[in-house]
Amino acid sequence: MEAYIIGIGNELLRGSIVNTNAVFIAQDLVKLGIRVKGMLNVGDDINSIVSSLRFVTDVADLILITGGLGPTHDDLTREAVSLFTGLPLVFSEEALENIKYYFSLRKRPFGPGTPKEAFIPKGSEVLKNNVGVAPGFWVRHNNKDIVVLPGVPREARDIWENIVKKRLENLYSKDNPIFTLRVFGLGESTVESKILDIIKEDPSNIDILIGEPLEIKLFIRGENAQKLFERIKERLEEYIFTTDDESLVEVVVKKLKERKITVATAESCTGGLLAEKITDIPGSSEIFKGGFIPYTRWAKKILGVPSYIFDAGEVSLEMAENLARIARDKFSSDIGIGITGNAGPSAGDNTKPVGYVCIGLVKDNEVICKDFQLEGDRARVRSLAVQWALDMLRRSI
Amino acid sequence: MEAYIIGIGNELLRGSIVNTNAVFIAQDLVKLGIRVKGMLNVGDDINSIVSSLRFVTDVADLILITGGLGPTHDDLTREAVSLFTGLPLVFSEEALENIKYYFSLRKRPFGPGTPKEAFIPKGSEVLKNNVGVAPGFWVRHNNKDIVVLPGVPREARDIWENIVKKRLENLYSKDNPIFTLRVFGLGESTVESKILDIIKEDPSNIDILIGEPLEIKLFIRGENAQKLFERIKERLEEYIFTTDDESLVEVVVKKLKERKITVATAESCTGGLLAEKITDIPGSSEIFKGGFIPYTRWAKKILGVPSYIFDAGEVSLEMAENLARIARDKFSSDIGIGITGNAGPSAGDNTKPVGYVCIGLVKDNEVICKDFQLEGDRARVRSLAVQWALDMLRRSI
Repeated sequence: MEAYIIGIGNELLRGSIVNTNAVFIAQDLVKLGIRVKGMLNVGDDINSIVSSLRFVTDVADLILITGGLGPTHDDLTREAVSLFTGLPLVFSEEALENIKYYFSLRKRPFGPGTPKEAFIPKGSEVLKNNVGVAPGFWVRHNNKDIVVLPGVPREARDIWENIVKKRLENLYSKDNPIFTLRVFGLGESTVESKILDIIKEDPSNIDILIGEPLEIKLFIRGENAQKLFERIKERLEEYIFTTDDESLVEVVVKKLKERKITVATAESCTGGLLAEKITDIPGSSEIFKGGFIPYTRWAKKILGVPSYIFDAGEVSLEMAENLARIARDKFSSDIGIGITGNAGPSAGDNTKPVGYVCIGLVKDNEVICKDFQLEGDRARVRSLAVQWALDMLRRSI
Repeated sequence: MEAYIIGIGNELLRGSIVNTNAVFIAQDLVKLGIRVKGMLNVGDDINSIVSSLRFVTDVADLILITGGLGPTHDDLTREAVSLFTGLPLVFSEEALENIKYYFSLRKRPFGPGTPKEAFIPKGSEVLKNNVGVAPGFWVRHNNKDIVVLPGVPREARDIWENIVKKRLENLYSKDNPIFTLRVFGLGESTVESKILDIIKEDPSNIDILIGEPLEIKLFIRGENAQKLFERIKERLEEYIFTTDDESLVEVVVKKLKERKITVATAESCTGGLLAEKITDIPGSSEIFKGGFIPYTRWAKKILGVPSYIFDAGEVSLEMAENLARIARDKFSSDIGIGITGNAGPSAGDNTKPVGYVCIGLVKDNEVICKDFQLEGDRARVRSLAVQWALDMLRRSI
């Protein structure tokens, strides 16, 4: 089966927002082994939507649409699907129930008249929206499945997770579970080369995907999934950070919580990005005690970095270790992490090259310091540095 | 003129990466007044690319393609454009010069044989790539303009900024400059309602776009641009933070640099996001002295928040002000900013509702404290809080 993902809304065409719905839908489809033929964004214009539907149903069997289900005259997805399929829009009691349910949930009065969201193409199935007004719908037409979800990401995700994805899982992997692996620190092509012989045995059931920087996801499906998984696992052992579907920072925060280990940070070149990433995970206050951002020489002095450390250089392994110690000692955490480096774009009065980053980690009497020469622009260097710091943290606990 | 943007590459269809090229191209097209009919991502498959080209040239005149220009057998954009237009791929001396130039720049040896990147559809124009190997090309076919750029964002942006955008500007706004305005703190619909009468006079030459959270961009074009701009400016005066094409954080950092004012931060609920955002701007070390992330009660005590402040609550105006003072005093900066709040998802043992955030700013003898009830999930609340802090900072300098 081949799928096409469509996003509907003028805001998508203006670059005001990115179609994040297409991203999570695509990732889940890859996991299920459903090939995505293309993604398309189109505006709130009925003719454009209909001509897009004509094009995509020519090249794919499963059409996943998000957006254009709201109450205003700009929301034309229902009308376009009706026009394209020839199925008239009919009132649906079930859709109305969904809408009333949402209004009661929000304790909002339900106005007179029948809302637009209660009409769906004849014969289509209502897909219940638990977090918004407009239900989605699923219609089968000329052997093509057209699935329509609201554009608001939270709502699209709700219906996707609770109904659509589950149903696709039942169709595609009922008897064979899907195995997941995530590795850190290798490029996509390196991962591929390490398991190329295994991939060649069952190429359609092994997928390699790029996640966060330096994070690679593998999905393994099919009858031999278990065996393939075990072999791949053995081959990539030292790089694997999870066999669940979670990111490195999620794994680290979970592990810290389980083991009741606390962390504090002192970040120079990353300017708070590591702390920001950790505290982005709900409940991280259990394990993150606090952080410093000694961005300048002055700030490092204020925090108590002794002058002989400056002799080694503001960007040095000695500085990274000292920052880690200061973070740990000041906040009385179990682990301290220090990051210093030159993120660029210009080297400034720094003697170290752009992209050179030192990371220090102290824990009990243990000290781990590593330096990296990272490639990319400022934002990339900062985000790679944080990923390496998280990996060092993971390996230490 | 109507445009269609195409991204080519399997990684786009797998949700591994987002087509960021489409975003900046779309935003620039809106500014120029060129309507985007749609955006489409397609895989490294020649038939899919050709059928996509057939579809998009049916609905648009200017086709902007990124990706598939590399040296591997997966890179098929040249071949697809050749197949679609019927123009054979021919060797281009100019393209080869571009490739050699890049190799010399990187001091890499230029291997034997003619690289694939030196072939372009007959009659097309080479678009020089200053930061990578593969030049782009521009071909006119059946009254349609097909412009092809590399997929690497840095390279796509280089050719876009230096050649394609400039040429489109010459075509569309040669005699009339485009005016830009950015406002903070209003929603898109509020901005629209405030200037609806002006928009109605020349709707095709006034565009409103969503930028960063709470930032709205306005583009004004056409013969009456100057007059329209002045009137809109008067109407939105108090909300405008720039009449240049730059974001709020860029404006704030620039202003601080110009006036030689330094800043320090102490962030609780935003966990370092404000510092991270400021230090993301190159050269921010001139104005950012350092930051604290007192994420826990413990960390706040360690930093020296006196116990009577805790009586007012960990999330309180008093705490925000105190954190601001500590940041300023410890790092000897001109301005201190403190942020405390409840980002959710659960209220925890916090007595304040999810989304409630207090921001304090101290400068000389001046103290400004504000509280906000922000809407959205954890990430949204944190990013809105940071935006409001930046706006308070902007207004104070």
